[in-house]
Amino acid sequence: MLRSVRIVGSGLIGTSIALGLRPHSITSQMIDIDSARAHLAQDLVGRAHQGPSDLVIFALPSHALGSVIEAEFLLNPNSIFMDVGSVKYEPLQQIAHSSLPLEQFVATHPMAGREIGGAQAARADLFATRTWVMAPGSKTSQEAIAVVRQVIQTLGAHCVVMKADEHDRAVAAISHLPQILSSLLAATLNDTPMDWLELSGSGLRDTTRIAASDPGLWSQIIYSNRENLRGLLDSMQHSVNELRENLDDPAQIAELIKAGGEGRARIPGKHGGAAREYTYLPIVIDDKPGQLAAIFNECAAIGVNIEDLSIEHSPGQLSALITLSLSSSDALLISDHLLSIGWNVHPVLK
Amino acid sequence: MLRSVRIVGSGLIGTSIALGLRPHSITSQMIDIDSARAHLAQDLVGRAHQGPSDLVIFALPSHALGSVIEAEFLLNPNSIFMDVGSVKYEPLQQIAHSSLPLEQFVATHPMAGREIGGAQAARADLFATRTWVMAPGSKTSQEAIAVVRQVIQTLGAHCVVMKADEHDRAVAAISHLPQILSSLLAATLNDTPMDWLELSGSGLRDTTRIAASDPGLWSQIIYSNRENLRGLLDSMQHSVNELRENLDDPAQIAELIKAGGEGRARIPGKHGGAAREYTYLPIVIDDKPGQLAAIFNECAAIGVNIEDLSIEHSPGQLSALITLSLSSSDALLISDHLLSIGWNVHPVLK
Repeated sequence: MLRSVRIVGSGLIGTSIALGLRPHSITSQMIDIDSARAHLAQDLVGRAHQGPSDLVIFALPSHALGSVIEAEFLLNPNSIFMDVGSVKYEPLQQIAHSSLPLEQFVATHPMAGREIGGAQAARADLFATRTWVMAPGSKTSQEAIAVVRQVIQTLGAHCVVMKADEHDRAVAAISHLPQILSSLLAATLNDTPMDWLELSGSGLRDTTRIAASDPGLWSQIIYSNRENLRGLLDSMQHSVNELRENLDDPAQIAELIKAGGEGRARIPGKHGGAAREYTYLPIVIDDKPGQLAAIFNECAAIGVNIEDLSIEHSPGQLSALITLSLSSSDALLISDHLLSIGWNVHPVLK
Repeated sequence: MLRSVRIVGSGLIGTSIALGLRPHSITSQMIDIDSARAHLAQDLVGRAHQGPSDLVIFALPSHALGSVIEAEFLLNPNSIFMDVGSVKYEPLQQIAHSSLPLEQFVATHPMAGREIGGAQAARADLFATRTWVMAPGSKTSQEAIAVVRQVIQTLGAHCVVMKADEHDRAVAAISHLPQILSSLLAATLNDTPMDWLELSGSGLRDTTRIAASDPGLWSQIIYSNRENLRGLLDSMQHSVNELRENLDDPAQIAELIKAGGEGRARIPGKHGGAAREYTYLPIVIDDKPGQLAAIFNECAAIGVNIEDLSIEHSPGQLSALITLSLSSSDALLISDHLLSIGWNVHPVLK
């Protein structure tokens, strides 16, 4: 039964964990190299217990782990330990070279998604509905696995077990490579004249959205996972070169675009299922308060569920195009209904 | 005064132009290499005029232009001519090598954004609120420019004048390169195990969205603009290689991510202004009909304008995280209001 946690690192993740555990009568000791930060976090999460903790959570950058392991192990020699870093190779190396027995350690990675910093941004449900990867090693004890699983589930996250090296290869492919390409693409825009950028549409905006991510955080993540990224970057260079060499051959170019469409279709949709086939319903609205609300009301009134939507604004105009993603039956229902009451609904797109 | 148009190519673009001109008492002759397609389009857009046309619009793939120019010029030797292709180099080459005098021709490109095909998908307001680039040459007559400008404005689009070669360099940078990188990235997912893809978040989905675009259409666009893309692909190869060589240096990686963020910040926001600083308000909702409507109602009730929003669904869960983009004052207003009536609103993010 987990009752007390020591959290080493009082930033967004550590403080959010403590906030999320508090309603379950689990107390947290907040620790930080910056005592003011630790103090703020402790104030936010309530009074700490005295003495040893059942679980110690390393919620600090992985490269700083080496400087705290020994002291933390001395303080809680019988505790379970876990980390929450984005890459698993580096923490496992550091643990392996420390006195902390591998039996007592579980590497984990909460896919919390957003990069906002500091205890003041923490929230009790940061992990609710998120995936949280647990990567126990071959020596990790069943007790340690059970305790860590309890923490993950208590925080409302969805626990996925994966080997550490597989986790690192997975996030290299699905998260770190997209980040790098988005950043490289966005970096080219520094040399693009503003009146060219005025022509840009949602394609450019979507492909470069994550380029706005935090450089300090991401340089550490990419650095930590560099061994896996090297191969992916080699492949990408090869692909760019292959396309470049085939620019005179429309059939080869079409093959590339087709392969991209097939890869895209493999990304799972909501709720972890296979990607759904949505029907898209475009509606032109005035860009003023109340327009979206009115449409959503009509959907709710006839029981239509909006799976997703996008809003596109046109340069120099005060109207906007919204596109609802719906099941095909819902799309027909709401399209007919909105048309009948005078909305500017366009034919559905498959 | 423009009264009659001949549209060569009865697909989405051509038919939408005719539909949009019809309410302004401008009639269209619909032409297509496939007479059934032309017939369908003509039925949709109303009766054609007899005899010559004031304006001839080439609304067919640019590589097919060569096969129709001479016949069309013979038929309407005194008309104005325009095209609507995504790349301007190829049509201009073909016109230059034809009997059609450059005085009578204007190259244009409507940024209509969505790729859906066929006359049956056409709509009168396809171009409403969109940007439409006009690229007159040095020999183009003032009369031709005036007629084409009238068509663009009649269709509700926003006319931007740009030189043809500059247009092609612009769309290579802001549209074709993003398409290629999105497709190359998405193509790597064909080799990615499904349980890795289950971990993917909105970053991967956003960067690969346009990879679902039509291969036939895009291979022609990329092929037509290959001279401009060669240099951009060389630069991209150089950038990928530079990052790969600097993977052991976190400071160099941080520089790249930072440059990407700066480039991203240069993309104009809505209404053609500089990118706005939005405040982001995260709200966790049950993923069922009526939840979004209820939130949008509350926004409308207190006059808060939602600039944009995203919806994230978590695997295996029935709740969703929506993030509203708002002005900072609106974010405070609606956050306080929603909290006071019991919504699961999180602290705003800058």
